[in-house]
Amino acid sequence: MIKRIDHIAIAVQGLEATVGFFADKLGLPFSHISDEPEQHAQVAFFPVGGSEVELVAPTDTTSGLAKWLEKRGEGLHHLCLEVDDLDAVLARLAAQGVQLINPTPVTNSAGRRLAFVHPKATHGVLIELYEEQKP
Amino acid sequence: MIKRIDHIAIAVQGLEATVGFFADKLGLPFSHISDEPEQHAQVAFFPVGGSEVELVAPTDTTSGLAKWLEKRGEGLHHLCLEVDDLDAVLARLAAQGVQLINPTPVTNSAGRRLAFVHPKATHGVLIELYEEQKP
Repeated sequence: MIKRIDHIAIAVQGLEATVGFFADKLGLPFSHISDEPEQHAQVAFFPVGGSEVELVAPTDTTSGLAKWLEKRGEGLHHLCLEVDDLDAVLARLAAQGVQLINPTPVTNSAGRRLAFVHPKATHGVLIELYEEQKP
Repeated sequence: MIKRIDHIAIAVQGLEATVGFFADKLGLPFSHISDEPEQHAQVAFFPVGGSEVELVAPTDTTSGLAKWLEKRGEGLHHLCLEVDDLDAVLARLAAQGVQLINPTPVTNSAGRRLAFVHPKATHGVLIELYEEQKP
Protein backbone atom coordinates (compact mmCIF):
# COMPACT_ATOMS: atom_id res chain seq x y z
CA MET A 1 0.00 0.00 0.00
CA ILE A 2 2.99 2.33 0.58
CA LYS A 3 4.55 3.05 -2.82
CA ARG A 4 7.59 5.28 -2.27
CA ILE A 5 9.13 8.18 -0.39
CA ASP A 6 7.32 11.15 -1.92
CA HIS A 7 9.46 13.74 -0.16
CA ILE A 8 11.54 14.55 2.86
CA ALA A 9 10.89 18.01 4.29
CA ILE A 10 13.49 20.18 5.99
CA ALA A 11 12.30 23.05 8.19
CA VAL A 12 14.30 26.25 7.65
CA GLN A 13 13.97 29.84 8.86
CA GLY A 14 13.91 31.28 5.33
CA LEU A 15 14.50 30.20 1.76
CA GLU A 16 17.04 32.73 0.44
CA ALA A 17 20.23 31.36 2.01
CA THR A 18 19.05 27.76 2.25
CA VAL A 19 18.05 27.35 -1.41
CA GLY A 20 21.52 28.60 -2.33
CA PHE A 21 23.17 26.06 -0.05
CA PHE A 22 21.16 23.03 -1.16
CA ALA A 23 21.27 23.93 -4.89
CA ASP A 24 24.65 25.54 -5.45
CA LYS A 25 26.84 24.03 -2.74
CA LEU A 26 25.31 20.60 -2.16
CA GLY A 27 24.21 20.22 -5.79
CA LEU A 28 20.56 19.19 -5.48
CA PRO A 29 18.56 20.05 -8.63
CA PHE A 30 16.34 23.05 -7.77
CA SER A 31 12.89 23.17 -9.34
CA HIS A 32 10.76 26.03 -8.00
CA ILE A 33 9.32 27.83 -4.96
CA SER A 34 5.64 27.61 -4.12
CA ASP A 35 3.52 29.64 -1.71
CA GLU A 36 1.42 27.42 0.56
CA PRO A 37 -0.84 29.94 2.33
CA GLU A 38 -2.94 27.24 4.01
CA GLN A 39 0.25 25.95 5.65
CA HIS A 40 1.55 29.50 6.37
CA ALA A 41 4.70 28.46 4.53
CA GLN A 42 6.82 28.78 1.42
CA VAL A 43 8.25 25.57 -0.01
CA ALA A 44 11.29 25.06 -2.27
CA PHE A 45 11.30 21.83 -4.30
CA PHE A 46 14.31 19.75 -5.30
CA PRO A 47 13.22 16.70 -7.34
CA VAL A 48 15.77 13.90 -7.20
CA GLY A 49 15.41 10.32 -8.40
CA GLY A 50 11.60 10.09 -8.28
CA SER A 51 11.33 11.73 -4.84
CA GLU A 52 11.82 15.28 -3.65
CA VAL A 53 13.72 17.15 -0.99
CA GLU A 54 11.62 20.11 0.17
CA LEU A 55 12.68 23.15 2.19
CA VAL A 56 9.76 24.50 4.20
CA ALA A 57 9.94 28.02 5.66
CA PRO A 58 7.22 29.65 7.78
CA THR A 59 5.60 32.89 6.60
CA ASP A 60 4.40 33.92 10.05
CA THR A 61 5.51 33.46 13.66
CA THR A 62 2.46 31.69 15.05
CA SER A 63 2.00 28.58 12.85
CA GLY A 64 2.88 25.10 14.02
CA LEU A 65 5.96 25.15 11.78
CA ALA A 66 7.17 28.46 13.24
CA LYS A 67 6.78 27.12 16.77
CA TRP A 68 8.53 23.85 15.83
CA LEU A 69 11.49 25.87 14.49
CA GLU A 70 11.60 28.04 17.60
CA LYS A 71 11.77 24.94 19.79
CA ARG A 72 14.00 22.61 17.75
CA GLY A 73 15.88 24.75 15.24
CA GLU A 74 16.37 23.99 11.57
CA GLY A 75 16.53 20.35 10.50
CA LEU A 76 14.64 17.32 9.22
CA HIS A 77 10.93 18.00 9.74
CA HIS A 78 8.78 15.25 8.22
CA LEU A 79 8.76 12.21 5.98
CA CYS A 80 6.10 11.92 3.28
CA LEU A 81 5.13 8.48 1.98
CA GLU A 82 2.95 7.99 -1.07
CA VAL A 83 0.07 5.54 -0.67
CA ASP A 84 -2.33 4.24 -3.27
CA ASP A 85 -5.51 4.43 -1.17
CA LEU A 86 -5.35 7.03 1.60
CA ASP A 87 -8.83 6.29 3.01
CA ALA A 88 -7.95 2.61 3.41
CA VAL A 89 -4.61 3.37 5.10
CA LEU A 90 -6.20 5.86 7.52
CA ALA A 91 -8.98 3.40 8.37
CA ARG A 92 -6.41 0.66 9.07
CA LEU A 93 -4.28 2.97 11.25
CA ALA A 94 -7.31 4.23 13.20
CA ALA A 95 -8.53 0.66 13.77
CA GLN A 96 -5.12 -0.13 15.29
CA GLY A 97 -5.31 2.86 17.63
CA VAL A 98 -2.63 4.89 15.82
CA GLN A 99 -3.05 8.58 16.67
CA LEU A 100 -3.71 10.70 13.56
CA ILE A 101 -3.37 14.46 13.21
CA ASN A 102 -5.82 14.27 10.28
CA PRO A 103 -8.30 11.42 10.81
CA THR A 104 -9.82 12.41 7.47
CA PRO A 105 -7.76 13.59 4.49
CA VAL A 106 -7.12 17.26 3.79
CA THR A 107 -6.56 18.66 0.30
CA ASN A 108 -3.50 20.79 -0.50
CA SER A 109 -3.18 23.74 -2.90
CA ALA A 110 -2.41 21.34 -5.78
CA GLY A 111 -5.65 19.41 -5.14
CA ARG A 112 -3.89 16.34 -3.73
CA ARG A 113 -5.23 14.47 -0.70
CA LEU A 114 -2.98 13.97 2.33
CA ALA A 115 -3.04 13.30 6.07
CA PHE A 116 -0.48 13.49 8.88
CA VAL A 117 0.13 10.78 11.48
CA HIS A 118 0.97 12.08 14.96
CA PRO A 119 4.66 11.73 15.92
CA LYS A 120 3.59 10.41 19.33
CA ALA A 121 2.41 7.29 17.47
CA THR A 122 5.44 6.91 15.19
CA HIS A 123 8.50 6.98 17.48
CA GLY A 124 8.93 10.73 17.02
CA VAL A 125 8.62 10.92 13.24
CA LEU A 126 6.05 13.29 11.74
CA ILE A 127 4.73 11.22 8.81
CA GLU A 128 2.67 12.64 5.96
CA LEU A 129 0.68 10.17 3.86
CA TYR A 130 0.07 11.42 0.34
CA GLU A 131 -2.33 9.83 -2.07
CA GLU A 132 -1.01 8.70 -5.41
CA GLN A 133 -2.14 10.87 -8.33
CA LYS A 134 -4.91 9.05 -10.14
CA PRO A 135 -4.56 8.97 -13.94
CA MET B 1 25.82 14.48 -9.41
CA ILE B 2 23.16 13.65 -6.79
CA LYS B 3 21.11 10.75 -8.12
CA ARG B 4 18.39 9.96 -5.59
CA ILE B 5 17.42 9.64 -1.93
CA ASP B 6 19.16 6.42 -0.92
CA HIS B 7 17.56 6.26 2.50
CA ILE B 8 16.08 8.19 5.37
CA ALA B 9 17.24 7.02 8.79
CA ILE B 10 15.13 7.12 11.94
CA ALA B 11 16.90 6.84 15.30
CA VAL B 12 15.09 4.52 17.74
CA GLN B 13 15.91 3.12 21.17
CA GLY B 14 15.49 -0.51 20.06
CA LEU B 15 14.23 -2.48 17.09
CA GLU B 16 11.69 -4.90 18.60
CA ALA B 17 8.71 -2.59 19.07
CA THR B 18 9.64 -0.20 16.29
CA VAL B 19 9.99 -2.78 13.51
CA GLY B 20 6.52 -4.02 14.47
CA PHE B 21 5.08 -0.52 14.24
CA PHE B 22 6.63 0.42 10.90
CA ALA B 23 5.98 -2.97 9.26
CA ASP B 24 2.67 -4.18 10.71
CA LYS B 25 0.86 -0.98 11.62
CA LEU B 26 2.18 1.56 9.11
CA GLY B 27 2.64 -1.03 6.37
CA LEU B 28 6.19 -0.43 5.18
CA PRO B 29 7.71 -3.53 3.52
CA PHE B 30 10.27 -4.97 5.97
CA SER B 31 13.41 -6.53 4.48
CA HIS B 32 15.94 -7.51 7.16
CA ILE B 33 18.01 -6.46 10.19
CA SER B 34 21.74 -5.98 9.94
CA ASP B 35 24.40 -5.61 12.66
CA GLU B 36 26.65 -2.63 12.04
CA PRO B 37 29.36 -3.07 14.67
CA GLU B 38 31.51 -0.23 13.32
CA GLN B 39 28.54 2.10 13.91
CA HIS B 40 27.67 0.45 17.29
CA ALA B 41 24.19 -0.04 15.87
CA GLN B 42 21.60 -2.42 14.50
CA VAL B 43 19.71 -1.33 11.41
CA ALA B 44 16.31 -2.50 10.11
CA PHE B 45 15.70 -1.96 6.39
CA PHE B 46 12.40 -1.14 4.67
CA PRO B 47 12.90 -0.82 0.90
CA VAL B 48 10.19 1.29 -0.73
CA GLY B 49 10.07 2.68 -4.27
CA GLY B 50 13.80 2.59 -5.01
CA SER B 51 14.79 4.14 -1.66
CA GLU B 52 14.79 2.79 1.89
CA VAL B 53 13.51 3.78 5.29
CA GLU B 54 15.99 2.58 7.93
CA LEU B 55 15.53 2.25 11.68
CA VAL B 56 18.84 2.68 13.49
CA ALA B 57 19.18 1.53 17.12
CA PRO B 58 22.33 1.89 19.23
CA THR B 59 23.98 -1.22 20.69
CA ASP B 60 25.83 0.66 23.43
CA THR B 61 25.30 3.78 25.53
CA THR B 62 28.39 5.75 24.51
CA SER B 63 28.22 6.03 20.72
CA GLY B 64 27.27 9.24 18.93
CA LEU B 65 23.89 7.72 18.10
CA ALA B 66 23.20 6.80 21.74
CA LYS B 67 24.07 10.33 22.84
CA TRP B 68 21.95 11.84 20.08
CA LEU B 69 18.97 9.75 21.27
CA GLU B 70 19.54 10.73 24.88
CA LYS B 71 19.50 14.41 23.92
CA ARG B 72 16.79 14.53 21.25
CA GLY B 73 14.68 11.40 21.62
CA GLU B 74 13.53 9.13 18.82
CA GLY B 75 12.92 10.67 15.40
CA LEU B 76 14.32 11.51 11.98
CA HIS B 77 18.11 11.17 12.19
CA HIS B 78 19.76 11.61 8.80
CA LEU B 79 19.15 11.87 5.07
CA CYS B 80 21.30 9.78 2.72
CA LEU B 81 21.77 10.93 -0.87
CA GLU B 82 23.37 8.75 -3.52
CA VAL B 83 26.07 10.42 -5.62
CA ASP B 84 27.89 9.08 -8.65
CA ASP B 85 31.38 10.31 -7.71
CA LEU B 86 31.89 10.77 -3.96
CA ASP B 87 35.48 12.04 -4.22
CA ALA B 88 34.41 14.78 -6.64
CA VAL B 89 31.46 15.84 -4.44
CA LEU B 90 33.62 15.94 -1.28
CA ALA B 91 36.30 17.95 -3.09
CA ARG B 92 33.69 20.45 -4.31
CA LEU B 93 32.14 20.80 -0.84
CA ALA B 94 35.54 21.24 0.84
CA ALA B 95 36.55 23.86 -1.74
CA GLN B 96 33.40 25.80 -0.82
CA GLY B 97 34.20 25.65 2.89
CA VAL B 98 31.43 23.18 3.77
CA GLN B 99 32.27 21.42 7.05
CA LEU B 100 32.56 17.64 6.60
CA ILE B 101 32.47 14.97 9.30
CA ASN B 102 34.36 12.66 6.91
CA PRO B 103 36.66 14.71 4.66
CA THR B 104 37.69 11.43 3.07
CA PRO B 105 35.26 8.54 2.43
CA VAL B 106 34.78 5.70 4.90
CA THR B 107 33.74 2.18 3.88
CA ASN B 108 30.78 0.45 5.50
CA SER B 109 30.30 -3.25 6.28
CA ALA B 110 28.87 -3.82 2.79
CA GLY B 111 32.00 -2.36 1.18
CA ARG B 112 30.28 0.82 0.01
CA ARG B 113 31.95 4.24 0.26
CA LEU B 114 30.22 7.04 2.16
CA ALA B 115 30.85 10.30 3.99
CA PHE B 116 28.83 12.52 6.32
CA VAL B 117 28.46 16.30 6.00
CA HIS B 118 28.30 18.19 9.30
CA PRO B 119 24.81 19.42 10.27
CA LYS B 120 26.34 22.80 11.20
CA ALA B 121 26.94 23.29 7.47
CA THR B 122 23.55 22.05 6.26
CA HIS B 123 20.95 23.97 8.27
CA GLY B 124 20.73 21.24 10.90
CA VAL B 125 20.42 18.20 8.62
CA LEU B 126 22.87 15.34 9.06
CA ILE B 127 23.52 14.33 5.43
CA GLU B 128 25.19 11.09 4.36
CA LEU B 129 26.60 10.93 0.84
CA TYR B 130 26.68 7.40 -0.50
CA GLU B 131 28.53 6.39 -3.65
CA GLU B 132 26.58 4.70 -6.38
CA GLN B 133 27.33 0.99 -6.75
CA LYS B 134 29.61 0.56 -9.73
CA PRO B 135 28.62 -2.26 -12.11
